[in-house]
Amino acid sequence: MKTEIISIGDELLIGQVVNTNASWIAEQLNIAGIEVIRINTIADIREEILKALQEASGRAEVVLITGGLGPTRDDITKNTLCEYFDSRLVFHAPSFAYVKKLFGDRGLPVREVNRKQAEVPHNCIPIVNENGTAPGMWFEKEGTVFVSMPGVPFEMKAMISNYVIPELSKKINGLQIIHKKVLTHGVGESFLSELISDWENNLPVNMKLAYLPQPGIVRLRLSGSGRDRAKLNIEMDEKIKELQNIIPELIFGYGEKTMEEVVGELLKNSGMTLSTAESCTGGYIAHLITSIAGSSAYFKGSVVAYSNQIKTSILDVKEDTLAAHGAVSEQTVTGMALGVRKKFNTDFAIAVSGVAGPDGGTDQKPVGTTWIAVAGPDVLIAEKHLFGKDRQRNIRIAAITALNKLRLMMINDK
Amino acid sequence: MKTEIISIGDELLIGQVVNTNASWIAEQLNIAGIEVIRINTIADIREEILKALQEASGRAEVVLITGGLGPTRDDITKNTLCEYFDSRLVFHAPSFAYVKKLFGDRGLPVREVNRKQAEVPHNCIPIVNENGTAPGMWFEKEGTVFVSMPGVPFEMKAMISNYVIPELSKKINGLQIIHKKVLTHGVGESFLSELISDWENNLPVNMKLAYLPQPGIVRLRLSGSGRDRAKLNIEMDEKIKELQNIIPELIFGYGEKTMEEVVGELLKNSGMTLSTAESCTGGYIAHLITSIAGSSAYFKGSVVAYSNQIKTSILDVKEDTLAAHGAVSEQTVTGMALGVRKKFNTDFAIAVSGVAGPDGGTDQKPVGTTWIAVAGPDVLIAEKHLFGKDRQRNIRIAAITALNKLRLMMINDK
Repeated sequence: MKTEIISIGDELLIGQVVNTNASWIAEQLNIAGIEVIRINTIADIREEILKALQEASGRAEVVLITGGLGPTRDDITKNTLCEYFDSRLVFHAPSFAYVKKLFGDRGLPVREVNRKQAEVPHNCIPIVNENGTAPGMWFEKEGTVFVSMPGVPFEMKAMISNYVIPELSKKINGLQIIHKKVLTHGVGESFLSELISDWENNLPVNMKLAYLPQPGIVRLRLSGSGRDRAKLNIEMDEKIKELQNIIPELIFGYGEKTMEEVVGELLKNSGMTLSTAESCTGGYIAHLITSIAGSSAYFKGSVVAYSNQIKTSILDVKEDTLAAHGAVSEQTVTGMALGVRKKFNTDFAIAVSGVAGPDGGTDQKPVGTTWIAVAGPDVLIAEKHLFGKDRQRNIRIAAITALNKLRLMMINDK
Repeated sequence: MKTEIISIGDELLIGQVVNTNASWIAEQLNIAGIEVIRINTIADIREEILKALQEASGRAEVVLITGGLGPTRDDITKNTLCEYFDSRLVFHAPSFAYVKKLFGDRGLPVREVNRKQAEVPHNCIPIVNENGTAPGMWFEKEGTVFVSMPGVPFEMKAMISNYVIPELSKKINGLQIIHKKVLTHGVGESFLSELISDWENNLPVNMKLAYLPQPGIVRLRLSGSGRDRAKLNIEMDEKIKELQNIIPELIFGYGEKTMEEVVGELLKNSGMTLSTAESCTGGYIAHLITSIAGSSAYFKGSVVAYSNQIKTSILDVKEDTLAAHGAVSEQTVTGMALGVRKKFNTDFAIAVSGVAGPDGGTDQKPVGTTWIAVAGPDVLIAEKHLFGKDRQRNIRIAAITALNKLRLMMINDK
């Protein structure tokens, strides 16, 4: 059931509002097994709306329209719909009764503009708005369904969930779509695609793979379609199991998880605690960890040692070590990890020291040079990385890489 | 200059990714005085791309395309562009040199797929990608400009800012548009609009005001248009001077500055140093400060004290204080500020302790309760705030509010 979304609103075209409505609708339709072929964002202008409706009718079986139904003058959608569907406005008593109730509940007087909002084209099925004044409208023309809804998110969402998707589902017979995400860290998109190319090439025709890269992370999205949801689910899980055997060390999680969530769960489930000592990441690792609700169960805190003096006075790194090897060195970063682990009395400690940039690089230690150490109850590891030139990106990638090191240590400890 | 944005990507049509790229581009074009007439989101399918290009060429003078240029096989945009522009791929040495440098800097081998990424249609102007492997492409066909860019936000953004908008601006003649932003903290959007309503109502017809709220911050964007750029600039500065007299204490900066940049400049210019002691903000203040290049000149570090034990052992908060008043109290937060200031030997110190949520609230200290302290050479202040229920938002607003307190202390000290 090919569906097009038309978002109407000048505020979207000047970038003042991000079109989260369209993403939300697309997600809901996808879950319901309805394919979105296009999202079209247009201005609140009669000609633009007419053109967009005309174009959509040529390629989609369902056209979902949001926006342009408010009481203010820039909203001309309803009259344009009348024109397109060769219709006239009629008063819709049930919608007006709803408006009166809504205003009554809030102790507000009903105005003339609100009475006008209860007028709908005579040849549509009005959809009652449970949360606002403008009703939705369901039209059918030459085999295509058109649904017009308000742009206010919670008004639109109730209509989609309670009316539009149930009605559309009645019209569909069968095809299910399932998406599964595999989260990887360690190699870039192009190298990853080489590693798994045989597996990817041998995917059955009803499964497709997409690469969704982020700094330090590549998410793999496997999309499958089929009439038997349970069977499809099992087939996809088998494919993912194959993938696990090809790149076991690169996969850190599944679905919508973040690295900090995965690490947090490992710590929580094992009853172990963590502290961090951060130089170039400047508190970002602590911030990621503490962005998870309940992290105080396993995270005791961090020392952001942005000057050498703090590395010695608080983290007990020896002045000789700093003098001999510098702040960005194996010796210093392991000293930081051991120091914070002892001071904070935790099971694990992460330490990072590097040149985030844009300045501070040398020939020996160019911008991006980063030492990461993880200290555990029995093991101490330290690794040197060379990230890129962009400060924010270096901070982000260093943090993800450090958390992943801790994850691997915890898993291998088991 | 009518512009259409085409966003290519299956992930957008299933609602997995919100199309923030299109909003960002629309905002940048709007600021540059370029009108966006449509945003079209389509699938990574040859026929869809060809149709969308054809349609756009009929209504737009400029077509900006994002997405579909990665090295993996789900990206078929480049071949489709060749087909549409009747072109053949040729190797582009400067782009490949950039790729080699990028990979070389990171110590990674250049692969065959990356070499292929440096191939571009022979009849386009390649746009060097400063942050990635896929070059952008600028085409002109029958009077319409087409620009294809990667979908990775920071790669695309650099191309738009550094190449596309400057080139498009050369093509526009006449009407100048200037935007100036005034950054405020302290009151919400609706109260702010009441405070400045007289001023706003008396703006000349060629100036418009927009409110751009973020957690803890409301940015005011004044947009003016006129043929004489210098004169317009002076007129707008006069209006902003009027505004400064109405809400002096609420304005913390101008333009694209962030709170952490403003505070960083104050510290840098005065030669003063800062440390932080963070409980509920969990390192986020340190992260904001250290996201600024050169912050090591004034920031010595932070103690993230996520457990009471660290508050006493590292920050020297007295156990009696914690027992008598709790972690979220004036006594504890001032103890944290004084403790970190002394230990880190800095001029100023910020401390925050609160209930970020969603759990941990009590009747006396509900979720959102936050104590903020700032200690300076001569002054110690502490303030209680009640923020909202959302954890991420509370962390963000607490950090901005704390930085602003430091800013006010430094300004009033002068």
